[in-house]
Formats: sequence, C-alpha cells, structure tokens
Amino acid sequence: MYRAEFEAAEKVFSSRFVSTVSGSLPTQSKAIVYSKHGPPEQVLSVKHIPLGPLGPNKVLVKILAASVNPADINVIQGTYPVKTSFVNGIDFVGGNEGVGQVIAAGENVHTVSPGDWVLPITRAIGSWQTYAIAECNDLLNLGQVEGVSHVSAATISVNPPTAYRMIKDFAQLQPGDVIIQNSANSGVGQAVIQLAHAWGFKTVNVVRNRPNLEVLIKQLKDLGADMVVTEEQLRTPEIMRQIAALGPAPKLGLNGVGGKSATNVARLLGRHAHFVTYGGMSKEPVALPTSLFIFKDIKCFGFWLNEWFELHPFSQRKQLFTELLDLVRQGKLKEPTHELFSLSTKTDAELTSAIGASLSGFLNGKLVLVP
Amino acid sequence: MYRAEFEAAEKVFSSRFVSTVSGSLPTQSKAIVYSKHGPPEQVLSVKHIPLGPLGPNKVLVKILAASVNPADINVIQGTYPVKTSFVNGIDFVGGNEGVGQVIAAGENVHTVSPGDWVLPITRAIGSWQTYAIAECNDLLNLGQVEGVSHVSAATISVNPPTAYRMIKDFAQLQPGDVIIQNSANSGVGQAVIQLAHAWGFKTVNVVRNRPNLEVLIKQLKDLGADMVVTEEQLRTPEIMRQIAALGPAPKLGLNGVGGKSATNVARLLGRHAHFVTYGGMSKEPVALPTSLFIFKDIKCFGFWLNEWFELHPFSQRKQLFTELLDLVRQGKLKEPTHELFSLSTKTDAELTSAIGASLSGFLNGKLVLVP
Repeated sequence: MYRAEFEAAEKVFSSRFVSTVSGSLPTQSKAIVYSKHGPPEQVLSVKHIPLGPLGPNKVLVKILAASVNPADINVIQGTYPVKTSFVNGIDFVGGNEGVGQVIAAGENVHTVSPGDWVLPITRAIGSWQTYAIAECNDLLNLGQVEGVSHVSAATISVNPPTAYRMIKDFAQLQPGDVIIQNSANSGVGQAVIQLAHAWGFKTVNVVRNRPNLEVLIKQLKDLGADMVVTEEQLRTPEIMRQIAALGPAPKLGLNGVGGKSATNVARLLGRHAHFVTYGGMSKEPVALPTSLFIFKDIKCFGFWLNEWFELHPFSQRKQLFTELLDLVRQGKLKEPTHELFSLSTKTDAELTSAIGASLSGFLNGKLVLVP
Repeated sequence: MYRAEFEAAEKVFSSRFVSTVSGSLPTQSKAIVYSKHGPPEQVLSVKHIPLGPLGPNKVLVKILAASVNPADINVIQGTYPVKTSFVNGIDFVGGNEGVGQVIAAGENVHTVSPGDWVLPITRAIGSWQTYAIAECNDLLNLGQVEGVSHVSAATISVNPPTAYRMIKDFAQLQPGDVIIQNSANSGVGQAVIQLAHAWGFKTVNVVRNRPNLEVLIKQLKDLGADMVVTEEQLRTPEIMRQIAALGPAPKLGLNGVGGKSATNVARLLGRHAHFVTYGGMSKEPVALPTSLFIFKDIKCFGFWLNEWFELHPFSQRKQLFTELLDLVRQGKLKEPTHELFSLSTKTDAELTSAIGASLSGFLNGKLVLVP
C-alpha cells in the first residue's frame, strides 16, 4: 500500500511539479516537533522528518511563513481542550497557522495548482516546518496572490478572523460606536484596532504598563487606535471622562486577559453592552459584579474561532478570508508587529526557547517562522 | 386644591363605596416608613399616616397582604439602583409587592371597581401598610378573585414572574431538559421548581447546608424538585453522576448568589448553555473560568424584572399574571413558605427587626405582612 502510494506520488511529481522548484522534490522537512505534552522548552525539538508519499488527494506545500500563537503553546502544554492523540514514537509538528505554496499536487486534486498560495483552515497541518503534505480539502486556495506579504498571509487565519467575528457577530454597532478591549497590542488586539477603524468604529485600547510605553502607544495609534491607556489609568476620572467624550458608552467589550483587567473593562461598558471573552492571559477567571448583569444588562459571551469554523460552511469561511485579504491589499490591515525566526539560520535551542517565551506577551511582536 | 380634591373624594366615597366596608372610610393608614437610607432596623419606624384625598383617577385600596423581598431591603439601604428621592420630613412607605382590595374609586376610574383585587405593577405604592391611595393606572385589576389565597396573590408580582421569564426567555428548553439553580429555597427558587415541573423541565436545586436540611429537601421535592443538593455536595463525583443521569447536561443555570456558588453551578452547565444572574446574596462577583466562555460557549445574562416591565406593553404584563394566577388555581404554583406578621398584633420593634433580618436567608420562608 505504502509502496503503491509512493509510486503514484512519484508519477504525479514527474508530470506536474512546478516551475519554482528546480530539480528533485524535497523528501524531508525540517520541523519543530513534540511527542508528549509539557513546557515547550522541554518537549519541543527540531528534527528532519520524512515527507511520506503524495497520495491522490494530497498536496505538497512549501511553508513560506508560519506564526506562533498562544493557542499553539497551550496545545503543546496539553492545556488546550483539543488534545493531541500521541502514538508512541510519532512526532507531531507544532503550529496551526501559516501560508504555504503548492509545489506538487496528487492525482485527484482539482482545487489547487502548483504555485498557488494555500492556508490550512479545516485542520492543523503542522505549520512549523519547511514542507508539509496536506489533504487538499483542508486547504483554502488563495490562488496566485499579489500585494500580500508572506507575514500577512501567514498571520491571517487566526487573529484577524477572531477580531472580525467578534466585532460583527455580537453587538449591532453603528459607525461612531465605541469598542473597548484589553490585550490591545496582541495579534487579535491589533486586528481589532484596524478592522474597527476601517469600519468606522472607535476603540479604547488597554495595555499593560511597560518601559517603552510611548513607542507602543504610537504603534497602536498609527494602526487607528482612538485611545491607548494602561490598566492602571483605566479607572481614573480623567480617562473615564475621555472615554465618555469619545461617543456613546462602549457597546462592545473584548477580553483576552480575564481577572481584574476584565472587570475594569466591563465596568466601563454602557447599558445592554456585549462583553466577549476570547482569551485569558492572566489565567484568572472573568469576575463581574452582579449589578453589571442585573442592572446594566451586560451580556457575556465567549468566542472560539475553531467553533465558528465548525459551524459555518466552507463558502462563508472563504468569504471571510477574501474580505480580510482585500483589506490587506487596501493597506487597512497591516502585518502584525513581528519577529522573524529562520528555521535554517537559528539554532535549534534558539527556536525552541523563543517559542517557549512567546506566551510572556512582552516580545517585540508575534513570532513568525520562515524557511 | 387639596380641599376641592378632598370634597370630590368624599362625594365618590358616599356614592360608590363597597359593601365590604361598613361605616366610614379609613382616614389613615398604619405604615412601616423610612425617611432616609440606612440599615432597616435603624431607619424603619411604624407610623399612622393620613391617607389624603381620593383624586379623580385614584383608588383607595385595603392591603390584604404584602411581602418583604430582598430588593425592598436594598431600596431602604440605598444600595438599589433605583433610589428613593427623599424630601425633608416626608415618610416613604416600604414595600413594592402586595395585593389590595379596592374600597373606593375616584371619579374617572373605569378600570377597577370596589371589591376587585389589585396588584401594583407599574410603580411601588408602598405595600407595607394597611391602606393606600394609588393611581388606577399603576394597578393591575385581578377582578373578583377566587381560588387564590391572600399570600399567593401578595407574592405573585416579583418572584414568580422572575422565574417565569428566566425559564422562558433565554435557553430554548424542551421537555426533559435540565435547569440548575442555586438559592433554590428562595422565593424565586421555589417558583422556578414549580414552573419548571409544570412545564416538563427537570431541576437540580442547590441550597446551603443547615441543621434542618432534610425538612427543606422534602419541602422542595414536594414542590417538584428532581434533585436537591448542598453547595458542598455539588462538586462531588456522586452528585455529578446523578446530574448526568437526569438527562442532557443542564441547558440553563440560574444564579441568585454569585461568588463560588455561581462558579460551581456554571461548571455543571452543558455546552452552549445559558447562565442567568438575578441576584447576588453572597455580595461576591460572578467569577467564571475563561474556558467556560471560550470552549463551552456559556452565555451569561442578567435578569431584572423592573426592566422587563418597562420594555413590554401592559397587555403582555397582564397576560403573564393571568397565566401565573391560572397556575395558582390549578395548584401548580403554591404559596411560598412564609411567616405572617400582623401589623395590628406585632409590636413595632418586632415588625422592623423582622424586616431587617429577612435578608439572612435562613428565615422560615418569606415574610408576609397582613393587617
């Protein structure tokens, strides 16, 4: 069986492989892998793994860039609700987000062609590697993409759609309405600022105090933030006055932190506002005074992109990415601040420790792995 | 002006007063009053207050029975969001709920007649007194009521409608579905048990441990409770197994307590469940783990009956009470466990201290004042 598949793959390779690849196709991938749950620094390692055969519905993809998201870390730690089903001796490749270019396509593949850019949007393909073989049905075909950087495409599948759906699907916002969010410099936070700005909504953005605060404030304001305040400033009369001057009391609150930060954001919401939790970086519960529920009618929800993907047809998912890529091309949705880490030039220890440290939230932006 | 109104009232009295009243009409009311915010024991007093004239749209009501609810105490304490606007030297009568019988009606009153039972449902008339003069438009006319006790009618305006709307307006429940609630022996809790039972839903009822626990368990099971458990038992494997055996995981959680109790109830909810907060007896915030929002899609709301009344037309409010009274007549919604306190036989100190103590939640049921 293995042999037959391999021969079929070889046949496909010889007939269809793409001009961008010169000479023979790759037979292995350099990958960041784990075979048990634990702290990333301890369980991650860098390995060359064989690529296996290209079955009839499979696609060989060169990974152009791949992001490191908090959820990826939680998956490796084993704290994510979707668990990795380990099989003894099998390495799992980390990473759920990234952009690849099709190098070769199996016999029955009609949805993508060599040269196309693709995003994994139904199942993780292990994006932290140089090449991957994927089921064609797990990929969204972006076609021959122009005007979009590798980093933009590699970071568009998780944070921007999360921001998009949270802004659109809960409160019924009108232009001029105000959104308040914590974790405003996170990947989601930056996308919220830009999408809200593009759609005519204002944003109050809460960040943690830090040495280079002024630099961060400028970055976020350049993205379209109306106000940037620290957690400590949030409850001061002056800031509350400034928020009141922005427009009607915030109708939508977005929470990626939990704990006291979530409480303080929720207290500034207007009557009947929606409060959506998508992350809990503080690891503390979302604590809301009873009066906010009863007398201010604050409605609290969670958002999980995996679930949105599961509940919506492929056509809607595709439409979402099409809109987001259009915003990228129009310059309205910029690459997140990021740090590139090359799989070929960084040492193995540098790669795994950078991934382990990415949850601290004080990096110079999102970690993006490139070949 | 006062004189003219008074004369008009006297004329009405003589022509229309009802057969149940023999001789002259009352000119004063014995009332439990306050003239500033503070602890009920300190700011409440018992006074005989003049009834004033019966204007053309006014109704003279004899209070048959009046309840003491937690919100009444919060109003007196000054912690309720709707504040009493004190005028120097003016006494405000406590109480928002009760049933009265019309003794006499002013000239332009066409919606009620002497002998009718009435409920105050748009504005508090001060139910903790023996007589009251009210605007006819603030009253819901129950007509000549049969098959309903004074206590049932006096306690039907606040707790049963709160239970009714929370069960009907959030989760889309099907017969056999499970509701879990804390504060299950409160007025709302008892109404939830009975309405859920009448409509074919099952209930898991959480109460605080107490010396006479078995008596309470029997009381609640007699009302239709499927399970009654203490806060301490709630997270034990045996109770979780029993809840799982009841049916699908609870689709609706009702919270009148907050704090740890709310957290523990919410943890037992099924995916996509609704969690509705209507009270916060613990005075602690509602603290929910981030994962419940994101991965279990628990949706959290508050419920405030005042707001429901404001947002819905009189016809819908009337329909709600009609349905509830029908359930009373059918024996499906019983009087809450209660303790009667007579305004004529109890001492003033007994009355005010009983009201002050009513928030403790360990009374022998709801306090009901009668003439």
